[in-house]
Amino acid sequence: MSHLFLTGFMGAGKSTVGRIVADRLGLPFVDLDAVVEEREGRGIPAIFSDSGEEAFRCAETDALASLAGEPDAVVACGGGIVLRDENRELLKRFGRVFYLTVTAEEALARLGEHAGRPLLEGEAGRMAATLLEGRNALYAALADERVDTVGWTAEQVADEVVRHVRERSHPAVVSVEVPGRSYDVLVGRALLGSLGSHVRRSSPGSRRVAVVTDSTVGRLFGAATEEALRSEGLEPVRFDVPPGEASKSWSQAGELLGGFASARLDRRDAIVALGGGVVGDLAGFCAATYLRGLSFVQVPTTLLAQVDSSIGGKTGIDLPAGKNLVGAFWQPAFVLTDTSLLSSLPDLEWLSGLAEVAKTAVLSGEADLAWLEANAAKLGQRDPEAVEHAVRLCVRFKASVVAGDERESGERECLNLGHTLGHAIEKVAGFGVVPHGLAVAEGMRFAARLAENLGLAEGGWALRQEDLLEALGLVGGLPSFNADALHETMRSDKKARGGRIRFALAIAPGQCEVHVVDDGVLAARLADWEGG
Amino acid sequence: MSHLFLTGFMGAGKSTVGRIVADRLGLPFVDLDAVVEEREGRGIPAIFSDSGEEAFRCAETDALASLAGEPDAVVACGGGIVLRDENRELLKRFGRVFYLTVTAEEALARLGEHAGRPLLEGEAGRMAATLLEGRNALYAALADERVDTVGWTAEQVADEVVRHVRERSHPAVVSVEVPGRSYDVLVGRALLGSLGSHVRRSSPGSRRVAVVTDSTVGRLFGAATEEALRSEGLEPVRFDVPPGEASKSWSQAGELLGGFASARLDRRDAIVALGGGVVGDLAGFCAATYLRGLSFVQVPTTLLAQVDSSIGGKTGIDLPAGKNLVGAFWQPAFVLTDTSLLSSLPDLEWLSGLAEVAKTAVLSGEADLAWLEANAAKLGQRDPEAVEHAVRLCVRFKASVVAGDERESGERECLNLGHTLGHAIEKVAGFGVVPHGLAVAEGMRFAARLAENLGLAEGGWALRQEDLLEALGLVGGLPSFNADALHETMRSDKKARGGRIRFALAIAPGQCEVHVVDDGVLAARLADWEGG
Repeated sequence: MSHLFLTGFMGAGKSTVGRIVADRLGLPFVDLDAVVEEREGRGIPAIFSDSGEEAFRCAETDALASLAGEPDAVVACGGGIVLRDENRELLKRFGRVFYLTVTAEEALARLGEHAGRPLLEGEAGRMAATLLEGRNALYAALADERVDTVGWTAEQVADEVVRHVRERSHPAVVSVEVPGRSYDVLVGRALLGSLGSHVRRSSPGSRRVAVVTDSTVGRLFGAATEEALRSEGLEPVRFDVPPGEASKSWSQAGELLGGFASARLDRRDAIVALGGGVVGDLAGFCAATYLRGLSFVQVPTTLLAQVDSSIGGKTGIDLPAGKNLVGAFWQPAFVLTDTSLLSSLPDLEWLSGLAEVAKTAVLSGEADLAWLEANAAKLGQRDPEAVEHAVRLCVRFKASVVAGDERESGERECLNLGHTLGHAIEKVAGFGVVPHGLAVAEGMRFAARLAENLGLAEGGWALRQEDLLEALGLVGGLPSFNADALHETMRSDKKARGGRIRFALAIAPGQCEVHVVDDGVLAARLADWEGG
Repeated sequence: MSHLFLTGFMGAGKSTVGRIVADRLGLPFVDLDAVVEEREGRGIPAIFSDSGEEAFRCAETDALASLAGEPDAVVACGGGIVLRDENRELLKRFGRVFYLTVTAEEALARLGEHAGRPLLEGEAGRMAATLLEGRNALYAALADERVDTVGWTAEQVADEVVRHVRERSHPAVVSVEVPGRSYDVLVGRALLGSLGSHVRRSSPGSRRVAVVTDSTVGRLFGAATEEALRSEGLEPVRFDVPPGEASKSWSQAGELLGGFASARLDRRDAIVALGGGVVGDLAGFCAATYLRGLSFVQVPTTLLAQVDSSIGGKTGIDLPAGKNLVGAFWQPAFVLTDTSLLSSLPDLEWLSGLAEVAKTAVLSGEADLAWLEANAAKLGQRDPEAVEHAVRLCVRFKASVVAGDERESGERECLNLGHTLGHAIEKVAGFGVVPHGLAVAEGMRFAARLAENLGLAEGGWALRQEDLLEALGLVGGLPSFNADALHETMRSDKKARGGRIRFALAIAPGQCEVHVVDDGVLAARLADWEGG
């Protein structure tokens, strides 16, 4: 049994929000006051006036206790439920407690029209403020989650509650809201075994499932993946490509598509990408184009793919002239992000992912940034709980950015933080020479100093990021570069517009701006940076 | 000067519809009654009661004459405008006349609430019917187009008027309404020279324009195409592929994409397909995938491409295992359908297109079918006017089917009429041996007889189609086939679902149904057909 309790002051909207949440989650809705009234055979005002508050409180506890063993429900509680120790224990034992916060003014405004709220009659204003103050600490201590309601509609508050519920479930479910083709990212440990049932649900007509992987990942997780599909009556067809960026080639894609045709995959079948970014990009492109588009599932096996490339629907193939010059936007049916798969990841790939985690924390805001600073060491040791938290944090952030911005503009451009210079470093060195994570980390350092130099960020902000990157082990290992070569490389990047280089600059935790940086300024900063 | 006059009985909605049409077309709206009132300095009821109907009619003629030399406008006329010879001449001379039809009952119902309509006061019902009857012939004789209004909203009537206007303009403009990415097909003669200005309008940011063509078409129209682009300051980059289906290969697509990269095409640039279906499919696929999607323009140069493959957004590449196994849905920015380009088309390619024209006329309905029957000989001689009419008819029909059904289901399946067996014939013979048009024509004959045999169509319907196909020259030239081989080939087609063969069957002009035909029945019919 795990009920979902909504608590909070009168006027917080517990009943209204509760009904919407119940509807969204497909659960019954229970109004605890209504249960009390039904059990007592009279209205609450009558209980108060005839028998007094204590009698009501007893009835309320009985009503709460009666939920034991009942099917999971969304339960709106009375405002005073937190007053009794016994109630608080029951709430904790019976499920998860949400605290919908509200100010006294707002609560009074919302209740202005209503009658029959005994504790608000008379000197309503004074009473309310006193009550709220007294109960606030109780609510806060009890609640598993707290959701603010002031300035939000009931629908919006319900959205937020549902989001929390889904993200705290196992696996956590993060929705990526792309217009017309939204999908879920499932995040948790030991999820691979459930792949088949999720494919069954998302692609009910599929029989054959192509599993595209590389030979390294295939050796580790290929058999388990196939077994997970077979256990649901699906027929896996394995395609192992050589590991490494070279597999994102036109000829490899053609071979894979030919393989799909030989395996007689039809329009109802599905394609699973089991691997890192290369496999995801390659398999995704083939899924987007085989028979003009098949259902596609991402099972990312690297930290970088889990926190970044598996979300957002970009697929791509390299041409000799450059990376990702060919591709398609093709959203997956779902992403299965099993953080247990990361335990065997080589250190350099781990570092690449950590750079994205650092970038995300900087872009996301103070809470995530502080969490990462506090847990940098644990992440270094790949502590399973910390890893799961970090991945979930990144998935949630990326999903929020991608939503409504599938084709990359505006906000999504901030995800390039550290990548403008990072890519140039990788390119000038020759791809594969400088580890991606270290290049991006260096790009973040440069962007942080640039933001300070341009007067956009306060002093100390660059240092804070440098400390974080160091704590994550994202330091050193870079050869020295020629500033002009880097400058020229950034200018010719396909994201530059008419040769004008656009920098994503974090100016504070959770605040990012995109600036076109003056060529002279940039040249000077690059020269400085090269020296220092 | 070319005004757009809306005529019809009172209550037909001329003013309401006129305002909407004017808004859609970006033209001023003129209410002729209002012009009369302004010129006379008094209301129409006053003119009638003070000076009589004749005075009003004179004022009306003056008002109409005053439109000479005025900027093009949408003009709502009074119900009696058709009574005077002089008015009818002015209307004809000044522009195009639409007749919005309405029944007397409907007109009275719509006017029920209104006052100040002098001719309807008193014995309204009887008068209305008499008036309507008397004027009907006059309206009909005068009008260039007639649009029914009963049962339609003003918005819908306006849509229909706008559609007529756009389709009768030069070039005719047919909108393909695909949700979120609608586009225009421009149909007319001698349009190629305007390509540059249309690209400028649809892709304002583009500088370079890739022109993908085959060497045959390139020799004929390549220079003119490049010139049309250059004249608007665009920079054409030519890519000539070898003619023929073999160019729809993975390797050719890869080469083309590499060419785009070498030419440094960026996200704002555009790609033009100048050619038949092969070039359109190939260039479209490359446009869909280069940099994850560039603006794409179709300039179809074969009859088949003009009436069919250039519309609908399907792109595709063949694999050794089968045709069109790889592709994407990618709608063009616009299609420039210049029927003058067809004059040099080889006869066999002409026949291929004619089969699609015949199919379209059968699917579209009695009017188009009768037109085609009457004009079969002219089409055989490639009479420019008949060709333009036929292409416009097909474009309009395909656009209406594609609208709202981008990913092929339901209605779009009817477009396969004649293709189920037709494809099998082509495949069994080896692609390129039997001309596509003759194969499809044979498929239509078979489908027509099947529809009769199954009792779905009335007797004579198959014969009517056979006569049409013969008149178009779509007869003979087929080797004899093995019924089992055709049956098996249809069963393994990617459009078959689980081995069940779906037949699009025309059961009457404009009526088509998709049937899964029982294997035994089909085998028997195929055996019969093979023999006969």
